[in-house]
Amino acid sequence: MAAKEVKPMVDKSNTSNHPNLILTKEGVASIKASLGKAPLFDEALSNSITKVDAEISTGIHVPIPKDMSGGYTHQRHKKNWFIMQEAGVLYQVTGEDKYAIYIRDMLLEYAEMYPTLPIHPTDRSYATGKIFWQCLNDSNWLVYVSQAYDAIYDFCTVEERTKLEKDLFRPYADFLSTGNPKFFNRIHNHSTWGNAAVGMIGLVMNDQELVDRALYGLQMDANKKNERDNDGGLIRPDGLKKAGFLAQLDGSFSPDGYFTEGPYYLRYAIFPFLQFGKALANNRPELGILTYRDNILKKAVYALLYQTDKNGLFFPINDAQKGMSWKAREVIMAVDLAYQHYGEDPMLLSVAQKQGTVILDEAGFMVARDLAKGLAQPMKQKSIAYKDGADGKQGGVAILRNNTAVENELCLVMKYSEQGMGHGHFDKLSYSLYDETGEIMQDYGAARWVNIDQKGGGRYLKENNTWAKQSIAHNTLVIDETAHYNGDIRIGEKHHPDLYYFNGTGDVQVVSTKSKNAYEDSELHRTMVLVKDENFRHPILIDVFKATSENKHQYDLPIWFQGHLLLTNFEYDTEMTTLNKMGDGHGYQHLWKEAVGKAKGDNAHINWFSNGKFYSMTSAVSADDELIFARLGANDPEYNLRHDPAFIIRKKDAKDATFVSIIEPHGGYNRVTELAEHPFTSVEKLSILHDDATYTVIQFSNKAGKEWTLMLAHQDASENSQHKVKIGDKQLEWTGAYKLK
Amino acid sequence: MAAKEVKPMVDKSNTSNHPNLILTKEGVASIKASLGKAPLFDEALSNSITKVDAEISTGIHVPIPKDMSGGYTHQRHKKNWFIMQEAGVLYQVTGEDKYAIYIRDMLLEYAEMYPTLPIHPTDRSYATGKIFWQCLNDSNWLVYVSQAYDAIYDFCTVEERTKLEKDLFRPYADFLSTGNPKFFNRIHNHSTWGNAAVGMIGLVMNDQELVDRALYGLQMDANKKNERDNDGGLIRPDGLKKAGFLAQLDGSFSPDGYFTEGPYYLRYAIFPFLQFGKALANNRPELGILTYRDNILKKAVYALLYQTDKNGLFFPINDAQKGMSWKAREVIMAVDLAYQHYGEDPMLLSVAQKQGTVILDEAGFMVARDLAKGLAQPMKQKSIAYKDGADGKQGGVAILRNNTAVENELCLVMKYSEQGMGHGHFDKLSYSLYDETGEIMQDYGAARWVNIDQKGGGRYLKENNTWAKQSIAHNTLVIDETAHYNGDIRIGEKHHPDLYYFNGTGDVQVVSTKSKNAYEDSELHRTMVLVKDENFRHPILIDVFKATSENKHQYDLPIWFQGHLLLTNFEYDTEMTTLNKMGDGHGYQHLWKEAVGKAKGDNAHINWFSNGKFYSMTSAVSADDELIFARLGANDPEYNLRHDPAFIIRKKDAKDATFVSIIEPHGGYNRVTELAEHPFTSVEKLSILHDDATYTVIQFSNKAGKEWTLMLAHQDASENSQHKVKIGDKQLEWTGAYKLK
Repeated sequence: MAAKEVKPMVDKSNTSNHPNLILTKEGVASIKASLGKAPLFDEALSNSITKVDAEISTGIHVPIPKDMSGGYTHQRHKKNWFIMQEAGVLYQVTGEDKYAIYIRDMLLEYAEMYPTLPIHPTDRSYATGKIFWQCLNDSNWLVYVSQAYDAIYDFCTVEERTKLEKDLFRPYADFLSTGNPKFFNRIHNHSTWGNAAVGMIGLVMNDQELVDRALYGLQMDANKKNERDNDGGLIRPDGLKKAGFLAQLDGSFSPDGYFTEGPYYLRYAIFPFLQFGKALANNRPELGILTYRDNILKKAVYALLYQTDKNGLFFPINDAQKGMSWKAREVIMAVDLAYQHYGEDPMLLSVAQKQGTVILDEAGFMVARDLAKGLAQPMKQKSIAYKDGADGKQGGVAILRNNTAVENELCLVMKYSEQGMGHGHFDKLSYSLYDETGEIMQDYGAARWVNIDQKGGGRYLKENNTWAKQSIAHNTLVIDETAHYNGDIRIGEKHHPDLYYFNGTGDVQVVSTKSKNAYEDSELHRTMVLVKDENFRHPILIDVFKATSENKHQYDLPIWFQGHLLLTNFEYDTEMTTLNKMGDGHGYQHLWKEAVGKAKGDNAHINWFSNGKFYSMTSAVSADDELIFARLGANDPEYNLRHDPAFIIRKKDAKDATFVSIIEPHGGYNRVTELAEHPFTSVEKLSILHDDATYTVIQFSNKAGKEWTLMLAHQDASENSQHKVKIGDKQLEWTGAYKLK
Repeated sequence: MAAKEVKPMVDKSNTSNHPNLILTKEGVASIKASLGKAPLFDEALSNSITKVDAEISTGIHVPIPKDMSGGYTHQRHKKNWFIMQEAGVLYQVTGEDKYAIYIRDMLLEYAEMYPTLPIHPTDRSYATGKIFWQCLNDSNWLVYVSQAYDAIYDFCTVEERTKLEKDLFRPYADFLSTGNPKFFNRIHNHSTWGNAAVGMIGLVMNDQELVDRALYGLQMDANKKNERDNDGGLIRPDGLKKAGFLAQLDGSFSPDGYFTEGPYYLRYAIFPFLQFGKALANNRPELGILTYRDNILKKAVYALLYQTDKNGLFFPINDAQKGMSWKAREVIMAVDLAYQHYGEDPMLLSVAQKQGTVILDEAGFMVARDLAKGLAQPMKQKSIAYKDGADGKQGGVAILRNNTAVENELCLVMKYSEQGMGHGHFDKLSYSLYDETGEIMQDYGAARWVNIDQKGGGRYLKENNTWAKQSIAHNTLVIDETAHYNGDIRIGEKHHPDLYYFNGTGDVQVVSTKSKNAYEDSELHRTMVLVKDENFRHPILIDVFKATSENKHQYDLPIWFQGHLLLTNFEYDTEMTTLNKMGDGHGYQHLWKEAVGKAKGDNAHINWFSNGKFYSMTSAVSADDELIFARLGANDPEYNLRHDPAFIIRKKDAKDATFVSIIEPHGGYNRVTELAEHPFTSVEKLSILHDDATYTVIQFSNKAGKEWTLMLAHQDASENSQHKVKIGDKQLEWTGAYKLK
């Protein structure tokens, strides 16, 4: 494919405003005047000089693209974009020509190659790029490189600029937009990158057509309806009326800043949002981008920081690789920019402190300066119920935190959001649980090894669909070994669960949600209560999961507990010499059935060890329930999956099913002192006193004999509703949808 | 069982020398004078005051013994010994009576209980204790408590002392010695504790009979020949001529300080050695204990520190729980005492710094003071070949380290020691491999959860015998699915492998060892070479394992690689829906056979990921070799085992077998930047050019085409030996047993 003919560049004479994209003339002057006054900034600058100088010394490498992510040409071009962007900053801050020369010469090599470059030979994406295997990565490149070009704009001759713009940047921007409408013209993180890339290079070149294209998108009929991307996500859903960057701002977030694909992708998407946003603030202040939609970008930054555990690791909701944290470069940028533009929140400084570095611009300088002044305050992550959907009416994700102390943190994440587009998982009413050591109950995350060439070139593996997205891979109820929405994204997109009630304050925090559509003939209702009580050494979690149906079913409620099983209060038969897979589809084909037990009494109790801590779960069960220990790993021909353990409570041949459990972290063990403290649960007995369509009442006690009663009303969530249940000869009365006493 | 009648106490008038056991009058005075001058000491003191005060505030708890380790009464009595010992120090240092009163009152409660106390109701040990389930723990108690009694000796009235000594200490010491000769009168870490306990209380009471009993043991005929303890260890081996503490010093260590049970137990045993040693130095200086046997205790302390990885975790040789490190209280004491008594080695200060605390005596004060002076030097752990056996002629353990930099550490541990008594494993010529992240190739350690009541009361589990001790659980060769010495300790005790040669210096370090007795009709010979070469980013390990036999056998060489398999260069068939155990005994019954493959060419290559790093192994194989992926976990009815992965190269129906592999750490991956660096091995090709009873020559190359040849001579290890091998038309000549070029 030959490069397209491009229009003549406009306004070549007006070069005196550069840099004006992210860096500004005033900003650079202020940084230069302040060198030596903010240690973290100076350190970041010094590290950058070391890194970029080392890279410059190896010469310029612009190979003909051929590899998937993880391969050499991919990694090399990726490195080029980072180094060019930093070299641009260094040129502006240090004034040393070598940085400008390096960028210019490298860009000229790209300009030599680009006009005759065909689309990338891999051809595996719904939107294959030229430099990389997908347009997404080509856009990443341009978001960074437009900054490098901005930095050396004045350094280049008119001839050089003309060549770069005619042979490289304009055709590059056209390829990403008019050349790839499926990629450019949708509401999706891919398109946000595309929009930002085209808009940012447009701003540098002062090319109004590109900027408008970025802001307002192409014509909607550039894409057909009902086409899907590689992940199964819809390109042009019914009702989509606009595209472009402003439409992304309107459509990508819920009104409180939740991003429907989850925080791992928000971390990725926030970068073009904030970078192009800042560039627009510098160049089109009349748009008011940074305060657009009631400060939606500020809300998004805080949503990012709130959706992490105590160590800053993102909750791996939907497709997400674990281990990503607020130390990511995108979040460093987001924190610094939010500090500069959204009121200098001192809690952001403590996050910057943990990040250990700042970005090389005015925002980064302000953060470093104020950290040096000792202005940081600890980051308090709130309990919050995020709404999903652009209209905030598509379910959501609730986070309950007991915030008393780091070493006593218990954090529940409950998911009742909409499908989350192509990266969504079939895990309605699922939860994950965290403490200061990390995961207690894991969300599997994605079956993908990002940028690890050995594993499918770093892309999503087939097990992402066959396992990671399936309901049984999550801590939620599975009926008849079938995933929610039958594992069909087209069904999933049409529905969402709903929040029934939420309380994120005080010692008894609660979230209650319902799903009427995960299964055709069944309704799911889960209520989770995070309780801080002086009678327990740590907060405890109460889980009440009710399924009601018109027909008889098999109900499986798994927990993906992290760690090593120590003890149960029931006997189980372990498969000693042969293991068999658990089922034939919807993820069950990936599970080995290791052991099955039956409870002796009304309670099944398991006790496990993980990361130096003891945990227990006590569940109210019946004598017929199967208590199954399973392990991931069947049908895994290439070792793509982790071989993690699960515990499943199975109720068979029942119209309705109510699962009640209490999870308690209760002690610890130190391998050096070899001392075990509080190895056993404090929960003594758990009973369901009453359970029907209107009310569920449970009771539990601790070893000291103290009793608690949890009363739940299922049909009226209002705070003032009055409820009565007769249990034996005792009348229970309470006000509001729930009561623990 | 009633308490025995005891002899009258001697010399009650002479109380003015106390404390004189570990603390001395002069030492206490010097500490008091120095408070505030050594921050780490002050911090340790302050922490101790906080802890002991909190404990005192809960009152005195002396329950009737009933529980196994992990249970309440065990943990309580254990806590009592620690708190009493510390309270004794605090009484001496602060002069506050509350500490003395707490100890005295608690001891009087013990004195009330002891005379009528039967042996512990658990009755599960070859030497059941009274306070605890084994005499060993009763001895622990007395080693600590004799220090507490020494500290408050002068505080007590003569009547109190008389009661304590008559009703508690003397009968307690008699029970541990004359009452339990199987426990007291052998060469074993148990007896060392017993000797120290009896000797230390004897020194406090000035009871010469007890001190002599501790130093010189009982009559040898107190035990019958050929009796064994719970672990299968011999109580009175043939040829044992003496017992008692001096005999322990002669018999427990090799001449260079290696402890036959391994470093985990050395860490445990060193405590009574050094504590009683110091007490004897204070009270019987004429014995010269601290310099006894050419400074054997100093050598033992250094052996402890050398047998750790870069992070201070002990190599889990033989029965050992992983995670134990030089942060253990015993090692803190050992480091401080060695600093005081063995020449103030500044490298010990850097270990103390990592330990983060010091003991509360003069030694600890000196360390804290010199740390504050900035005298610490980095600990350099040497490459060393430890000899095993009291005579130093029973094989050994070699440690090869490439010491260039922490982030580039590669450390090989090769084991060719004698059986290691009851805690020994059947793992002749096995190895484990470490880098700065920890284990690359693991030693399983013990099947035991020390002090975790949920797992068999914290004792050794049956899987310790059926799995952890077996040869296949280790990185060594297994013939015909049978453990070394047929898994029989009685055979194992009679033999040991031998060192063939060792070189622990320079860029090519090597250890070569032979075993003639692990199998009746086969000889094993393993040569391992640690190579630092600028052509590889990290050091590499070459493994040449030769087995020669008179008969045909099946040979399995496993590696217990830690991490997740990423890629192989051969095809393998994975069991998709059913897993079966691999064998019927000698550990094979615990393995699931997950996949089997065959090599396409002469090399089998596997690539895996662990702790942020990429590793590869390249092996020279034949087309007939089975390449097996296995996983631990079969026949594990109570989840006592970790479900770890292994890779096994199997050669069938062969008289001789030579296994050659190169292991290379080569790159890394960061989950936050998502950048993979050097994900693939640099090793391109590995060939066996020549292999017979006299010589093996191998050749390998890297991706850049550079070639190396390793020449090994098997029959003459002398440095000046001349060797020639003709390969094709090329004559190779070299001097010495090995040559790499």
